[in-house]
Amino acid sequence: MRTREDYFESLCRMGKNIYLGGDVVGRDDPNLRPGMNTVGITFDAQDDHDFANLMFAQSHLTGETVNRFTHVHRSSDDLLKKQKMTRLLCQRCGGCIQRCMGIDAVNALAAVTYACDQDRGTDYHQRFEAFLGDFQSKNIVGCCAQSDVKGHRRKRPHQQTDPDLYLRIVERKKDGIVVRGAKAHNTMAPYAEEIIAIPTRFLTTEEGDWAVAFAVPGDAKGVKLLTRTTQVRERVPELDAPVTQFGAADSMTVFDDVFVPNERVFLCGETEYGGQLALLFALFHRHSYTGCKPAVTDIMMGAAALVAEYNGIEGSTHVRDKLAEMVSVAELTYAAGVAAAVESTAHPSGTYIPNVVYCNAGRRHAGMNIYHEYEILCDLAGGLPATLPYDTEFVSEEVGELLKKYLKRTDDISPEDQYRCFRLISDMTVSALGGVLQYAGVHGGGSPVMENIAIMGTYDIEAKKNLVKRLAGIESG
Amino acid sequence: MRTREDYFESLCRMGKNIYLGGDVVGRDDPNLRPGMNTVGITFDAQDDHDFANLMFAQSHLTGETVNRFTHVHRSSDDLLKKQKMTRLLCQRCGGCIQRCMGIDAVNALAAVTYACDQDRGTDYHQRFEAFLGDFQSKNIVGCCAQSDVKGHRRKRPHQQTDPDLYLRIVERKKDGIVVRGAKAHNTMAPYAEEIIAIPTRFLTTEEGDWAVAFAVPGDAKGVKLLTRTTQVRERVPELDAPVTQFGAADSMTVFDDVFVPNERVFLCGETEYGGQLALLFALFHRHSYTGCKPAVTDIMMGAAALVAEYNGIEGSTHVRDKLAEMVSVAELTYAAGVAAAVESTAHPSGTYIPNVVYCNAGRRHAGMNIYHEYEILCDLAGGLPATLPYDTEFVSEEVGELLKKYLKRTDDISPEDQYRCFRLISDMTVSALGGVLQYAGVHGGGSPVMENIAIMGTYDIEAKKNLVKRLAGIESG
Amino acid sequence: MRTREDYFESLCRMGKNIYLGGDVVGRDDPNLRPGMNTVGITFDAQDDHDFANLMFAQSHLTGETVNRFTHVHRSSDDLLKKQKMTRLLCQRCGGCIQRCMGIDAVNALAAVTYACDQDRGTDYHQRFEAFLGDFQSKNIVGCCAQSDVKGHRRKRPHQQTDPDLYLRIVERKKDGIVVRGAKAHNTMAPYAEEIIAIPTRFLTTEEGDWAVAFAVPGDAKGVKLLTRTTQVRERVPELDAPVTQFGAADSMTVFDDVFVPNERVFLCGETEYGGQLALLFALFHRHSYTGCKPAVTDIMMGAAALVAEYNGIEGSTHVRDKLAEMVSVAELTYAAGVAAAVESTAHPSGTYIPNVVYCNAGRRHAGMNIYHEYEILCDLAGGLPATLPYDTEFVSEEVGELLKKYLKRTDDISPEDQYRCFRLISDMTVSALGGVLQYAGVHGGGSPVMENIAIMGTYDIEAKKNLVKRLAGIESG
Amino acid sequence: MRTREDYFESLCRMGKNIYLGGDVVGRDDPNLRPGMNTVGITFDAQDDHDFANLMFAQSHLTGETVNRFTHVHRSSDDLLKKQKMTRLLCQRCGGCIQRCMGIDAVNALAAVTYACDQDRGTDYHQRFEAFLGDFQSKNIVGCCAQSDVKGHRRKRPHQQTDPDLYLRIVERKKDGIVVRGAKAHNTMAPYAEEIIAIPTRFLTTEEGDWAVAFAVPGDAKGVKLLTRTTQVRERVPELDAPVTQFGAADSMTVFDDVFVPNERVFLCGETEYGGQLALLFALFHRHSYTGCKPAVTDIMMGAAALVAEYNGIEGSTHVRDKLAEMVSVAELTYAAGVAAAVESTAHPSGTYIPNVVYCNAGRRHAGMNIYHEYEILCDLAGGLPATLPYDTEFVSEEVGELLKKYLKRTDDISPEDQYRCFRLISDMTVSALGGVLQYAGVHGGGSPVMENIAIMGTYDIEAKKNLVKRLAGIESG
Repeated sequence: MRTREDYFESLCRMGKNIYLGGDVVGRDDPNLRPGMNTVGITFDAQDDHDFANLMFAQSHLTGETVNRFTHVHRSSDDLLKKQKMTRLLCQRCGGCIQRCMGIDAVNALAAVTYACDQDRGTDYHQRFEAFLGDFQSKNIVGCCAQSDVKGHRRKRPHQQTDPDLYLRIVERKKDGIVVRGAKAHNTMAPYAEEIIAIPTRFLTTEEGDWAVAFAVPGDAKGVKLLTRTTQVRERVPELDAPVTQFGAADSMTVFDDVFVPNERVFLCGETEYGGQLALLFALFHRHSYTGCKPAVTDIMMGAAALVAEYNGIEGSTHVRDKLAEMVSVAELTYAAGVAAAVESTAHPSGTYIPNVVYCNAGRRHAGMNIYHEYEILCDLAGGLPATLPYDTEFVSEEVGELLKKYLKRTDDISPEDQYRCFRLISDMTVSALGGVLQYAGVHGGGSPVMENIAIMGTYDIEAKKNLVKRLAGIESG
Repeated sequence: MRTREDYFESLCRMGKNIYLGGDVVGRDDPNLRPGMNTVGITFDAQDDHDFANLMFAQSHLTGETVNRFTHVHRSSDDLLKKQKMTRLLCQRCGGCIQRCMGIDAVNALAAVTYACDQDRGTDYHQRFEAFLGDFQSKNIVGCCAQSDVKGHRRKRPHQQTDPDLYLRIVERKKDGIVVRGAKAHNTMAPYAEEIIAIPTRFLTTEEGDWAVAFAVPGDAKGVKLLTRTTQVRERVPELDAPVTQFGAADSMTVFDDVFVPNERVFLCGETEYGGQLALLFALFHRHSYTGCKPAVTDIMMGAAALVAEYNGIEGSTHVRDKLAEMVSVAELTYAAGVAAAVESTAHPSGTYIPNVVYCNAGRRHAGMNIYHEYEILCDLAGGLPATLPYDTEFVSEEVGELLKKYLKRTDDISPEDQYRCFRLISDMTVSALGGVLQYAGVHGGGSPVMENIAIMGTYDIEAKKNLVKRLAGIESG
Repeated sequence: MRTREDYFESLCRMGKNIYLGGDVVGRDDPNLRPGMNTVGITFDAQDDHDFANLMFAQSHLTGETVNRFTHVHRSSDDLLKKQKMTRLLCQRCGGCIQRCMGIDAVNALAAVTYACDQDRGTDYHQRFEAFLGDFQSKNIVGCCAQSDVKGHRRKRPHQQTDPDLYLRIVERKKDGIVVRGAKAHNTMAPYAEEIIAIPTRFLTTEEGDWAVAFAVPGDAKGVKLLTRTTQVRERVPELDAPVTQFGAADSMTVFDDVFVPNERVFLCGETEYGGQLALLFALFHRHSYTGCKPAVTDIMMGAAALVAEYNGIEGSTHVRDKLAEMVSVAELTYAAGVAAAVESTAHPSGTYIPNVVYCNAGRRHAGMNIYHEYEILCDLAGGLPATLPYDTEFVSEEVGELLKKYLKRTDDISPEDQYRCFRLISDMTVSALGGVLQYAGVHGGGSPVMENIAIMGTYDIEAKKNLVKRLAGIESG
Repeated sequence: MRTREDYFESLCRMGKNIYLGGDVVGRDDPNLRPGMNTVGITFDAQDDHDFANLMFAQSHLTGETVNRFTHVHRSSDDLLKKQKMTRLLCQRCGGCIQRCMGIDAVNALAAVTYACDQDRGTDYHQRFEAFLGDFQSKNIVGCCAQSDVKGHRRKRPHQQTDPDLYLRIVERKKDGIVVRGAKAHNTMAPYAEEIIAIPTRFLTTEEGDWAVAFAVPGDAKGVKLLTRTTQVRERVPELDAPVTQFGAADSMTVFDDVFVPNERVFLCGETEYGGQLALLFALFHRHSYTGCKPAVTDIMMGAAALVAEYNGIEGSTHVRDKLAEMVSVAELTYAAGVAAAVESTAHPSGTYIPNVVYCNAGRRHAGMNIYHEYEILCDLAGGLPATLPYDTEFVSEEVGELLKKYLKRTDDISPEDQYRCFRLISDMTVSALGGVLQYAGVHGGGSPVMENIAIMGTYDIEAKKNLVKRLAGIESG
């Protein structure tokens, strides 16, 4: 099975199409390294006994053992394991492990290409399985390009002044198609080997050109990645820490007339299935969130508990109550994912689909609480993370000892540990990274309002009205 | 299996020890009927196909089929079924089904009597199983008397000026014990056949007299039930509705020197097991809440959805968002119960114990949201439930037609249905019943602060701190 | 100045048009007495030194000293005094003092009749001043009938299937008009001497028949009051308390072809001024709420603080924080009223108009928090208010001593005081009255969403956008 | 009156004692410029007609016109004007104007030095007035160093292992004192001309060495400023904007055996007045917050309204409701400041003291809502602020046009304005600055829990309990 090193080497062989800071750079640019390190954990864990049961799955195509990030879920147990794996990996990097993007897209395609073929006599599923075989055997890192830039928010794709504001087919050739458009918020695209593109919304019958799904290499001709990276502030070597290794990158991924060969085209005009893909990817992705969001909270509550201890207030009832609040956010979100797996159903394709209401209720709960969790951490930390002198002063010959003297709180915690604790919290909360995590908490994978729509579109609220009508003696309706 | 009728007859044969409104009455008092009807549903459901898989279980003592309300859980599946059964039954009566009190006490005793016997060589488990055999074969309705009146809140039982403020053994005889004290908030005691008493808190070694558990008939000599009943306001016959049949009663249950024969004594001085009983009953009971609280929310959301429809605002986004909020409260609470069952463990006695963190996180979530749910229902209903003219005016010759004329909203909903809808909501929210449900939502089975204590007493917060220390490069500790 | 006795006598002389419990009764019906007692406080306070500066004002018509509940505000100071008076009076009865309904309507009429006359050459203001002179000199109790029953919520008044679903003029005679319709949620109408009717919303030009304002005696021919009363549960004499004296009544006030003589007609077809009246009454009324809502919170926080003391937890930090939360609700709401008075403006009629944004922000804040306040009180009280045995048991020969024994907590608080405290809280929160206060908190005087509309209709949000544009370097727009 | 240029020049003449990024730098370091620009606004406004009534006050010492940032409040109106001035200035820079630190310290000293002299026969007030005369006539920029580093949180100053963990007198000389210690979170100290130090808490009688207040020049011998700066990310010139000019700096201000001459010592051992100074500075500062926090919300709501417009959702009801929420936060906080001024009292020294409850309720309300405001802005902005490509790509020859094409939403808003809007929000919320504002919102000037303590220490909660006792018929107590 490919390793982290293989993955990094593969990336470095790719063409230069990363637009970053005014330059065009390749995957060897140091700004991308933190994000690559994060994804690298999903390879390292292959050799980590703590993960043994979780990182591997048996391919339903070949029976071979594959990295679970390339696996199509074939049981409730697969979904439970994916959720648990996600939580443990995210605990390692202290945030989003990112690689679920690809596998969630793959699972959506596994179901929808099958359904389309059954109804329409197309051969997308066969193409998809060929792609998947390669994806699994090579342990490929894929991302999912879904969110179109969308232009005018109250107009449909075909109503836009510029039709390219949703990614679309601009030419259909014998051997493939040419696509144009741009996908926003495209996490990890700069270090994905494959970009899997799917529609972002329901499509009407006149929107066949926008009903397109495909996979292309990350450096395919015409693909341009306008990139933004996020990582914590650099440190002096004496105070370096594992957290500085990790990070992320997002891109606005422009498809500037990109040719996609037929064998990589998984949907091409069947509008009904475009909407299905959009929904089903979102559903798998929200199930992923029931694993990663609890991990984000695990880190937040760990930091809150640690700083409470360092502040000498760990025994206060208000601290206990605030930590219990964070535990509840994490565990209710996680419980929703468990219930979604327990109540999952088998799709005709054999793919297991998690329960819609529980996935969405779990994702929604995390999204509703993310700012409140930052508030709790800030509350327990006190003001120091916002005003902490820099590490350069901590190691300064002139004022280092003064800073250590005045950081001191209790005898059993060294000034360096004090500094490391507050510095980590500063990095987590008084930083661009903190802002990114707040936005990701609200909007990543669909904001609470999207989950409200998904829940209310599925939930049998009429049954609940009928319970009430019966109690009230209302017979009509 | 005994039926509702058998149960009612049994009650009516019991002695008069219900103190209500200045009188001493028997179980045939009409004020108790609504509560009895609620418990009656647990008998009726035995013959209801909708419940077939849920209402019955196989006794681990005899292999016989028994009503699940007398069953000791022997698997995760038992816990899942109990949770689901509870939700469906509570949907029927629009609130607390009450009978879980007894079965939760039985399950706690099943584990703790076994553990005590193993460690101390007592024979409580044998006594308990003899009691249980009867309880199951006769389909007995039991309640659980737990909350002592507690006197001075900052003093322990043995420190109280009056030692009776926690129920205690005042005399130990050859053939049994004499107990004195009072249990508060004793739901359904007035129509329970058996009262099962257990301690309310951890006990210190000097508190052996307070470490007592037993079962006595509801009309045992010296048992005095100071009773308060709750039901909706009466209606004129033309506007009667199923909701008026149901209700509840609570009592302050006074044990005024009650003799308990040895075979009914399940703990008598072993303080360590007193605390275990208190905790374990609370745990089973909080798992019950993951079934009943979602049902309470089901009724609230059904009423909210119905009144939104009647108010013509069912299509508004704010209505959708508020209903989604209620769905999330119900389903996250329920999901926590599912996860608690999935993660349950087998006690050495064979009894299955649900996961502590999930039970408590679920109960806590319901408790934190109950007032907010009432707020949403009030918000969507508008002011009418608080100012609705009485049913007597609706059927009045003089002004009935005027009232109907002015209640009219849309042509497809009759004034009577309008009235029935707003009247039900008025009964649910502008009434003593509404207040009782609010208090039960916060305090029943332990308030959110009790769940915080239970969660933080169990949760591995150190593991979360260690995740953070690793990221921060903190090696100590 | 008329006294409480004069007022009661005046009521008892009125005709019977109260429809209550299937009967037609007069103002001497004992069910109305609690509401009358509440309004009676506004008379008693005339002789109470604590209120001396507040209860009286100098009539701008005559220069005479009048009860402030009949006064038209002529300065910021008048508004400050009205707010303070309202708070103190509401503290006395533990809830809504009710009489502001009339004076808020009077103030709205004082401004709008003037404006209409100026623009349209009508003589409403003269009629109004004649009415006002009488209202002041006789110290009359008036109510305001505003909320129409409204029928289909998405249709305008003139679009309803039944045009009477908004109160309207059905006939215009030489000496007056005939009106038909019904006003809902009409607080205190059953013991108001005068009913002042005004429109409930903006009106379009084709809705002249609905643009009507007038005053009629509460027992005018054709006025039918379908009444609902609210008061706390009766008590045995030994445990009676001042709280049982107070209460309220609401009516659906039906105008079944009521003739209004011209001198009592204050608007008759001028649609533009109908909307103004609706808005301006709401504004004055929301300013009243900045006085009464803090008083409701005063009582809630007093009860919370008292029960915390009786529960022995008054020193806990969570109690301190929850009380501080209640103080903040009360005082921010009150501060908004102060700012509204400080920033008030003089209307051309001489009437002082409080600031729209502050009045609405204050009322909104109270409305957003009412359920949370009940939650805090419930939290601190524990479950006892919901399960407290009845007063009949407290005084029972058989079980009274047992109940006293087991209610006992600390030596310095007698069982009777314990009972009185929990009984009061039970009366406040586990009762129809509690429900009414919750609904009134949300919807009375306009729900938070109405305040959002009022705020955003007035607030200069463009100015705030411009601040941001400047910082961002955006020049357009 | 001195101008911005005078102030900058004065700073540049100061000695180098800024420790920043491993270097010792002077006030001409470009990293300090954004903070200096912010304070510079308080000079520029002297010539701005919009501020004319607000920026100037009449010195009670000399009768001269002085900048209000050097003025001692002598009336309610002074407090109202200070609050309004603060709001308008903060709107200019989009955040904290910083200079209130000094004037709040000056006002606290004006009262407490007087009181101490009256009681103890000291001459601090005379010294203070001499200092103030200079401060006013030279229009000096001062900061306040209050928060000690505090060491072990559960130990008092004199109990610390290292007594320097609270700033203290280490030597008393004839002509002055020597002080040692460090003050944390010292906003604007790096560009303050004078540092005014006061105690951070109540002091016991054995803590005379810690009861010290004084003023020293920012570059006094032994003063070392361990500095951290905050400003938005740099931009390419084509996209520069006013927001990039502003920023802040905080320091841990170390007093490494600093000599203070007697005429600059304002408290020296009188422990009782140390606590008074701490409290009174906090009170004036919380009143300042009722001006600046509404301005922070003004900017947040302006950004939210602007991005809602740019996203094409400005007409949605949920947007209206969220903006109304922000307006309410701003205006209730502001109203609390107005009420605090209206209810202010004259101190014997002639200084006007704002009302404690309203100042604290206002500051608390802002602090409780700051994270929620960020949540709303994030919600309305969508994910783009977190993933927005850099400005270097916007102006890139290769991909600039593609980025503009895909940023386009509606025809009336240019891609550049779109970019500017989202970039500003990104700078505000996905940045260290955003984190600093969140922490400042919670902890700056005292966190909500400090306000709870202040409120409950002042509020007459017994009066509220008595209201309830009367209603309940409880006579005791």
